[in-house]
Amino acid sequence: MIKLNGIYPPLPTSFRNDEELEPGKIAENINILFGYELAGILILGSNGEMVMLSNEEKKRVFDAGRKAIPTGKIMIAGTGAQSTRETIYLSSMASDSGADAVLVLNPAYYKGQMNSDALVQFYHDVAERSPAPVIIYNMPANSGLDLDADTIIKASEHHNIIGIKDSGGNLVKMATIIKNAKSGFQVLAGSASFLLPALSIGAVGGILALANIAPGLCLDIYNSFNEGNTESAKKYQLAAVELNTAVTRQWGVPALKAAMDYLGMYGGPVRKPLLPITSPIYRQLVELIDRTLKK
Amino acid sequence: MIKLNGIYPPLPTSFRNDEELEPGKIAENINILFGYELAGILILGSNGEMVMLSNEEKKRVFDAGRKAIPTGKIMIAGTGAQSTRETIYLSSMASDSGADAVLVLNPAYYKGQMNSDALVQFYHDVAERSPAPVIIYNMPANSGLDLDADTIIKASEHHNIIGIKDSGGNLVKMATIIKNAKSGFQVLAGSASFLLPALSIGAVGGILALANIAPGLCLDIYNSFNEGNTESAKKYQLAAVELNTAVTRQWGVPALKAAMDYLGMYGGPVRKPLLPITSPIYRQLVELIDRTLKK
Amino acid sequence: MIKLNGIYPPLPTSFRNDEELEPGKIAENINILFGYELAGILILGSNGEMVMLSNEEKKRVFDAGRKAIPTGKIMIAGTGAQSTRETIYLSSMASDSGADAVLVLNPAYYKGQMNSDALVQFYHDVAERSPAPVIIYNMPANSGLDLDADTIIKASEHHNIIGIKDSGGNLVKMATIIKNAKSGFQVLAGSASFLLPALSIGAVGGILALANIAPGLCLDIYNSFNEGNTESAKKYQLAAVELNTAVTRQWGVPALKAAMDYLGMYGGPVRKPLLPITSPIYRQLVELIDRTLKK
Amino acid sequence: MIKLNGIYPPLPTSFRNDEELEPGKIAENINILFGYELAGILILGSNGEMVMLSNEEKKRVFDAGRKAIPTGKIMIAGTGAQSTRETIYLSSMASDSGADAVLVLNPAYYKGQMNSDALVQFYHDVAERSPAPVIIYNMPANSGLDLDADTIIKASEHHNIIGIKDSGGNLVKMATIIKNAKSGFQVLAGSASFLLPALSIGAVGGILALANIAPGLCLDIYNSFNEGNTESAKKYQLAAVELNTAVTRQWGVPALKAAMDYLGMYGGPVRKPLLPITSPIYRQLVELIDRTLKK
Repeated sequence: MIKLNGIYPPLPTSFRNDEELEPGKIAENINILFGYELAGILILGSNGEMVMLSNEEKKRVFDAGRKAIPTGKIMIAGTGAQSTRETIYLSSMASDSGADAVLVLNPAYYKGQMNSDALVQFYHDVAERSPAPVIIYNMPANSGLDLDADTIIKASEHHNIIGIKDSGGNLVKMATIIKNAKSGFQVLAGSASFLLPALSIGAVGGILALANIAPGLCLDIYNSFNEGNTESAKKYQLAAVELNTAVTRQWGVPALKAAMDYLGMYGGPVRKPLLPITSPIYRQLVELIDRTLKK
Repeated sequence: MIKLNGIYPPLPTSFRNDEELEPGKIAENINILFGYELAGILILGSNGEMVMLSNEEKKRVFDAGRKAIPTGKIMIAGTGAQSTRETIYLSSMASDSGADAVLVLNPAYYKGQMNSDALVQFYHDVAERSPAPVIIYNMPANSGLDLDADTIIKASEHHNIIGIKDSGGNLVKMATIIKNAKSGFQVLAGSASFLLPALSIGAVGGILALANIAPGLCLDIYNSFNEGNTESAKKYQLAAVELNTAVTRQWGVPALKAAMDYLGMYGGPVRKPLLPITSPIYRQLVELIDRTLKK
Repeated sequence: MIKLNGIYPPLPTSFRNDEELEPGKIAENINILFGYELAGILILGSNGEMVMLSNEEKKRVFDAGRKAIPTGKIMIAGTGAQSTRETIYLSSMASDSGADAVLVLNPAYYKGQMNSDALVQFYHDVAERSPAPVIIYNMPANSGLDLDADTIIKASEHHNIIGIKDSGGNLVKMATIIKNAKSGFQVLAGSASFLLPALSIGAVGGILALANIAPGLCLDIYNSFNEGNTESAKKYQLAAVELNTAVTRQWGVPALKAAMDYLGMYGGPVRKPLLPITSPIYRQLVELIDRTLKK
Repeated sequence: MIKLNGIYPPLPTSFRNDEELEPGKIAENINILFGYELAGILILGSNGEMVMLSNEEKKRVFDAGRKAIPTGKIMIAGTGAQSTRETIYLSSMASDSGADAVLVLNPAYYKGQMNSDALVQFYHDVAERSPAPVIIYNMPANSGLDLDADTIIKASEHHNIIGIKDSGGNLVKMATIIKNAKSGFQVLAGSASFLLPALSIGAVGGILALANIAPGLCLDIYNSFNEGNTESAKKYQLAAVELNTAVTRQWGVPALKAAMDYLGMYGGPVRKPLLPITSPIYRQLVELIDRTLKK
């Protein structure tokens, strides 16, 4: 089974000013990021604006990602869709592009019918047909549906389901999964804001928006913990929370892209209905980046 | 401005057993429904499994719908997507197919960034570019985001936005919109369960899942109210709630399609991850249909 | 069984500037209100700051209320508490003071254990021991727990439970209750913002914060509906929503009391932690009162 | 400033079968618990059924608690009420009984008005008048209101506010508080289910329902972490989650009391509307206790 241990940035997708894809910038960003000891990269997660792209565009982004990611580093591809058939189709497509694993968000439009049985069935159907191993993606702040521990544990029983990215931040649920899911099931923190708490109970790493702009800080938390340096780990964790909140829950992908631009990467515009951050927020963001990273 | 007054079924999309489209059945169902005095039909709403279809399939369904809908009857087409550009694209496509109006669900994936400004901007961007007039679609149970009255009132100011289908069931919000939105802004109830309460405060009609299987009962509520027969209206409204709940919030589209099959229309299968209703639920459903419609 | 039909103000409790009780002002307010054709008054509902008073104070307020309420008019007394025994104690106390019925909010502190069985048991235990008939009080915005239709229907089966004040605003639930609760079970709207929708499906009246400051407008809605004048009823209902929202959900009891002061009644201070409304809000409130009531 | 570091059980309140207080059993339970290296005890928290007791009963329980708690051990007393004046009154009363600190739940009945300003004002008013130092109590699962980080940080600025018990389980909020509240502000985990994650980011201990029945296991987590033994800490934390969930969120105080009875302490009955756990749940509970504690 593929070992997921480590830190992964969920790469934003690069667009030109007219909102068209800019795959060359994707490659440039990947090159910069792999100056750090990252385990891999997630292509087309929530920060990659996956719900904004056509399937043809998704294929181009998967291909651009794989080409730029160094040999031996893991490419995870976001392939969740509202129908089972579309999710399988995208998982095959990502696999053809060379993805090492697919990250599958649960369908959530028909929330009333997405009970535990339907969700377990969905994950098993996808896992059965996906050429690449499947990582469950729980992202209640976006999907509006929070997978419960029992559902995740049951879904995890399929041999082709290897882990979960949990962005919900419920550490009790995470502990329940780590305790009760099949042996070897790998839990990744979905946010730098609770990376250390997650590691403390057995998570193996994280897919972290913050790792796009502060990969060093994210690795400092991860490495300090693994070296048993709990004081340093705590210090780095507390240092990360405010900036991470700014580029995720608070101001979202537009702020993450603005931060990348500020730091010499390519952030570029978001697709509408997302709007660029305003000037006052930009100033707060820059001040926060400087305060967090420059000292 | 197009007058929306009346009752509209949001037609389920017909699939074969292998989940492929069956446009001929769409036409047959439409023919049956227009045996009743309906104002029109919604093609590709939530009950039409709109999030399950590719764009190419959507085009085929819009075309099939328009061809079958009688001249003079209104075709509303569901065209909401997660990006502004895709929503505009689908609205143009539906317009090309002959839609009289488009029903636009708000994007909701990036809930944290979908504040009132972003949502108003989205609706104005779409309205500016959509050839057909726009009806706002508020469906919090599915989208996970409940448009507030202020947002709807501000969005309504665009000349090409003519109304709203509100499925939230918050009658206070509905009254606030009716009182404060621009003159002529048309409110449609999004569920038969609160049709009469909505009419009592000024709604002009409804887009009602129940109208697919009990168009007569929906029209009885509507006509009784308009004739000033409040006792009859109440009686029909109370009669409708339980069956409507069964085919919407409780058991969803799979139950609605099963009910259509039972009543001699074509329901057929749902697309996965939706699952067909179980046998015990089917028996409860049939008993409820008989109790509601046969006496 | 006592007939609850009609309109009831839930009277705010009068305090002096040092937060001590001012029972004389309670009597004065009641005298003013019964210049209108109200069915009765609720003493110590949410607007009466019931959770702020000691039991000894509650007794004084019940006594003051009963003394001032005209013969033949209904006094409803709020007696819900977190324990069953305390609720029974307060219901007996209110009954001793001459309450015609008690309004019993569900306990909600132990939300996780307050399943349907526990809640039905609670209401049956209270109904069994309360000398006065019991009205269920569903107030999810305050209690944080929304009684579902099944629970209410099961609770209603006790002979000493005669109705419900539902402040949740879910008209579908209300219709389900009216359809399925025991014959004669009486539903009262818990807010003027949805009085007409509630009447349209069979509610018999309302306990309405707005009736403290605009009893005439509330009665206009009620009487127009009962006379079959749906156009007038709609007009009055739409006129009431904005002011009602201001003195309930938006600015709460402090605004309701300020409005009473402005209109020549005694509002007076609220008990802390409630804070008086600020000057800018006071100006908006006064403007809204003038706009709603003076034309 | 009093140092809160360590583990505290929130003691259930002992009742006889007729629901009357049984203070002698409170003393016996305290004697048993202080066979472990606990820092102190919370009297009349949520597990102490604080909302079920009259003020006179509260006084008796505070007195019984203080008398039994060994010299040098900390007694924290729960004193939150819906009004500011009542909270101050209870805090003085607890202080008279010898409480070292008071735990003050935020008032939550008027949720709509309990904005950040009102809540900060409440805590400052109470802190100003409470003889004993104040610990904020955030318990959203019961109160229905989740204090946000900004409110807590602002409230913490008062010199007489020394810490918080946070039962919400939001580790990101907890990290934000630890980073930004005044120096020396002490955070206590409110549940054993996230004790280790909380310690990892700087919490100083916990007030833990589980510490009533498994004080040794709670201390194992705490001590392992403080000794830098992250592997052991993780193992004990994962072992604690399931039983802790059972006696808190899942089956609540009735299960906690049943577990105490099973383990040779005095649990006794709960006050209604709480109901004793059923026999099938009792069997599950006993099996879970044996599995968690006997190996």
